[in-house]
Amino acid sequence: MQEKFKTIGLVVRNDVQSHIETIKQVVSILNNRVDVIIHYLDGGAVDGLMPGVPVENLVKGADLVISLGGDGTLLSTASALVDSNKPLLGVNLGRLGFLADVSILDFEQHLVGILEGRFSVEKRFFIEGTFMKHGKVVSTNIAFNDIIVHAHQALSMIEYEVFSNGDLIHQQRADGIIVTTPTGSTAYALSGGGPIMHPSLETLAIVPICPHTLSNRPIVLPADQIIEISLSKSTTLGKVNYDGQSTQVMDNDHRIKIQRYPQPLTLLHPQDYDYFQILRAKLHWSTNH
Amino acid sequence: MQEKFKTIGLVVRNDVQSHIETIKQVVSILNNRVDVIIHYLDGGAVDGLMPGVPVENLVKGADLVISLGGDGTLLSTASALVDSNKPLLGVNLGRLGFLADVSILDFEQHLVGILEGRFSVEKRFFIEGTFMKHGKVVSTNIAFNDIIVHAHQALSMIEYEVFSNGDLIHQQRADGIIVTTPTGSTAYALSGGGPIMHPSLETLAIVPICPHTLSNRPIVLPADQIIEISLSKSTTLGKVNYDGQSTQVMDNDHRIKIQRYPQPLTLLHPQDYDYFQILRAKLHWSTNH
Amino acid sequence: MQEKFKTIGLVVRNDVQSHIETIKQVVSILNNRVDVIIHYLDGGAVDGLMPGVPVENLVKGADLVISLGGDGTLLSTASALVDSNKPLLGVNLGRLGFLADVSILDFEQHLVGILEGRFSVEKRFFIEGTFMKHGKVVSTNIAFNDIIVHAHQALSMIEYEVFSNGDLIHQQRADGIIVTTPTGSTAYALSGGGPIMHPSLETLAIVPICPHTLSNRPIVLPADQIIEISLSKSTTLGKVNYDGQSTQVMDNDHRIKIQRYPQPLTLLHPQDYDYFQILRAKLHWSTNH
Amino acid sequence: MQEKFKTIGLVVRNDVQSHIETIKQVVSILNNRVDVIIHYLDGGAVDGLMPGVPVENLVKGADLVISLGGDGTLLSTASALVDSNKPLLGVNLGRLGFLADVSILDFEQHLVGILEGRFSVEKRFFIEGTFMKHGKVVSTNIAFNDIIVHAHQALSMIEYEVFSNGDLIHQQRADGIIVTTPTGSTAYALSGGGPIMHPSLETLAIVPICPHTLSNRPIVLPADQIIEISLSKSTTLGKVNYDGQSTQVMDNDHRIKIQRYPQPLTLLHPQDYDYFQILRAKLHWSTNH
Repeated sequence: MQEKFKTIGLVVRNDVQSHIETIKQVVSILNNRVDVIIHYLDGGAVDGLMPGVPVENLVKGADLVISLGGDGTLLSTASALVDSNKPLLGVNLGRLGFLADVSILDFEQHLVGILEGRFSVEKRFFIEGTFMKHGKVVSTNIAFNDIIVHAHQALSMIEYEVFSNGDLIHQQRADGIIVTTPTGSTAYALSGGGPIMHPSLETLAIVPICPHTLSNRPIVLPADQIIEISLSKSTTLGKVNYDGQSTQVMDNDHRIKIQRYPQPLTLLHPQDYDYFQILRAKLHWSTNH
Repeated sequence: MQEKFKTIGLVVRNDVQSHIETIKQVVSILNNRVDVIIHYLDGGAVDGLMPGVPVENLVKGADLVISLGGDGTLLSTASALVDSNKPLLGVNLGRLGFLADVSILDFEQHLVGILEGRFSVEKRFFIEGTFMKHGKVVSTNIAFNDIIVHAHQALSMIEYEVFSNGDLIHQQRADGIIVTTPTGSTAYALSGGGPIMHPSLETLAIVPICPHTLSNRPIVLPADQIIEISLSKSTTLGKVNYDGQSTQVMDNDHRIKIQRYPQPLTLLHPQDYDYFQILRAKLHWSTNH
Repeated sequence: MQEKFKTIGLVVRNDVQSHIETIKQVVSILNNRVDVIIHYLDGGAVDGLMPGVPVENLVKGADLVISLGGDGTLLSTASALVDSNKPLLGVNLGRLGFLADVSILDFEQHLVGILEGRFSVEKRFFIEGTFMKHGKVVSTNIAFNDIIVHAHQALSMIEYEVFSNGDLIHQQRADGIIVTTPTGSTAYALSGGGPIMHPSLETLAIVPICPHTLSNRPIVLPADQIIEISLSKSTTLGKVNYDGQSTQVMDNDHRIKIQRYPQPLTLLHPQDYDYFQILRAKLHWSTNH
Repeated sequence: MQEKFKTIGLVVRNDVQSHIETIKQVVSILNNRVDVIIHYLDGGAVDGLMPGVPVENLVKGADLVISLGGDGTLLSTASALVDSNKPLLGVNLGRLGFLADVSILDFEQHLVGILEGRFSVEKRFFIEGTFMKHGKVVSTNIAFNDIIVHAHQALSMIEYEVFSNGDLIHQQRADGIIVTTPTGSTAYALSGGGPIMHPSLETLAIVPICPHTLSNRPIVLPADQIIEISLSKSTTLGKVNYDGQSTQVMDNDHRIKIQRYPQPLTLLHPQDYDYFQILRAKLHWSTNH
């Protein structure tokens, strides 16, 4: 099992000066055991380290990819791993993350365990948004957390229809509408009032942002249903957002179709990984108050 | 297919005088086409109709069971159908129900369709609560909507621990804690702030009632996880409630184990059944305001 | 009392063709009884009616101002009435409004009552936002509903500090932060989870939009407290919005100070005005479900 | 100013063995400076200390009352201080309280300050519930936090009407309905989703518990409005609860009238008292997550 991960691809956030020393230490720890290739998310390179490679090359060459940063870094890395079948480990440079669940403080210890085959494997699914105009595909985009249709301007409202397998779910007015995976359920959707969904679930949640219909509630649906969203006649312009990264303008001729992407992402966790423990720590669930 | 349902078992709520005439009409419509046996939920009988039979006999003798009342009547009927493998149709005497989705106004038309084999079949799962003392089984109870651990008195608080497959989810203080099926997600759990879960999902939601920890949020879990709830040391007395029907006193020596019951319930729906349409009607989701 | 309102200023929304006939009828009803001057919110004029006057002239010349449209039209009109001490009546061209509470269907009847002195008077307060840079006043703006500090882009987050009379309330992360009057409490703040505040209250509510701190809750404060909001160091850019109408860019050198404006607005209501009846109708509070 | 507080009345919770030593230390600190009388909430006495006096005698004899326990102890003490005009200071034996805001760790230091006249004074109002049958007064009860009408049994529903100054607010179904003061807004009402109300406000909030009407929202009203609650015909039995302490059975012949009690309670705070700081500490509002 040990030889499984001969080359490790390191995706790093190198825009924060205070992390540079830590990155060097991580590379040094890795170099003692495996081959390392590196991709700098913020371009350039770190003095004294190897030059960066394009992320596609990193994914191709690596047996295991490690993202070094926070949940945002892991999210960026995940999008590069679509279809690659390469496993991903998230190492946290700052505060504990929902996804980047290996603390930098325990890194060496956990790395040894993982290289020796002591880890658990978790499959998480992506969703794919097919953006259509007059029924023709304009583009497809993949998201790990969520796809959001929202107003063209902050504090504006859209009116939209959401369908599941062709059946109308509802027509509503809100600032926006979130379609979230279980992975995304602890991200933006949680602030919008959505439920937490266990990562092993094959479900999607539909969560409105500031709904005008006060009786609206989040709905959890099977992930094999096809969700479609279109803007109502009264709303001429909206936007579509994928994992908070990119947006496209949407009008009444457009429709976005959202479905589970067939190829999952493989996340690695240390053997003592406890999902609920992370929930409790991140959400400040404790009884002493 | 028509001969499939030769005997129909009718479970009726006969405590409301104004429903008696409707019950007679339903029996008359049925009698023209099939054999009918009847169970009166409120005891006694209806003048001019056949005498009632015990619900066990009804279930044994019927090819199809029809509950005539509202969602509460269907809930009572469902509990009698556990392990029977007999299909259930819910007919509504009053306002549209989430479960009793055939209006009395359309009854004859829908009945004809169903007797001719035009219906859709939906499987819904029960949950079973195993009540334990010092690790020994005290009793088991089955619920269709939800199992709730709550304070011994109204407006009191309990402190409890919830586990999933042996892992602590959280220790919290609240008026109570709801474990709900997708079926129950539009019942009490919805008032408590829980998400709506599509009935085809194999999920459970954990929904606190008036949680003291303000950062608490509902969690959706796979239905094949085993949920366990026990009271914390600081809480000496609580109660367990199954579908709002029966309660048992719980103390620190008890623990309730909740898991999906292996045998599902078979619900019949008319062919034009539309789950989301019922949601919209019941929850007043429309855009004209 | 009748001569009190000799000249009525009509502020109309004339962008919807289907309203033109109604506007003509309203003018005709008014012309039989009083002098009329008119301001067209969408410019131009209505064929066959008098030409429009600038809104300042209308306010100066009118004894009573009537806004003809919806809550949005009344909001625009209210902003023109600041410091004028002229009373305002809201007439609704479409669906019942929280503010525009005279239905066009009852207009003539209510008008007669109001001209004969049968009406109730309600004072509602504005809030004033003083936008400061390095402690110096950049601009002041008045709002009737709410002042909102929010992220520069949709779906982005800001981190901010809110102070009350110089004391820190909290430092939080959210999509934005609403400071709402009782009037605004049934507008955007309600979608954000804020409480309804009775219009006679001298209170402000602080309502976060999609707060990251899950234990955040809306706070109601006395309207004579001075609220100040500044962006935390981690957020370089935000925006300030007044009644959803205008926005200004905010950075770390800015601070917005929000306080009750000394001169209130005078709203007229028909004598049978019932605030709670409007709440029930607008929010679909009825027991039949 | 110093001589103002010559006799201090100490109300203590003496049911927890671990607090006995602390109580003795507090008495010793007090005895060095002032006369002390004591009331034991749990009966009996503490070995080595003076015997207890009835709470009425304590209130009569004391110039300042100190409650030693938590928020619950202060609540009990407050109810004994109605009409007395005696100031109250809350000292906390355990976790920081919303009301008992002097930590036992700082007690001596704060006591010295208070005896030397360095404190701030805050007035908080009580509410009075007048319980009526067929229009005649059955009893009156005073509450500091809240008055709640709720179902006779846990997990049951009531249907009720709420009126403000005789106008119907709404008819709803819920587990119960809370009428809370600003003081109570951080107690039970907060778990029910109510807003936080600044203690200087003269407001009441109406907060439903698990409302069936999903579009229901908390309403904040002026404290000089008279709130009345009665049960709808469909609900035959409910209960009324005052500060969680005592309950009375309510039926369709009853009506509860709730209004601000004319005599306020005088709370003392140390000079560095900061209401928002307590909110932040109790509600875990910090930005580091």
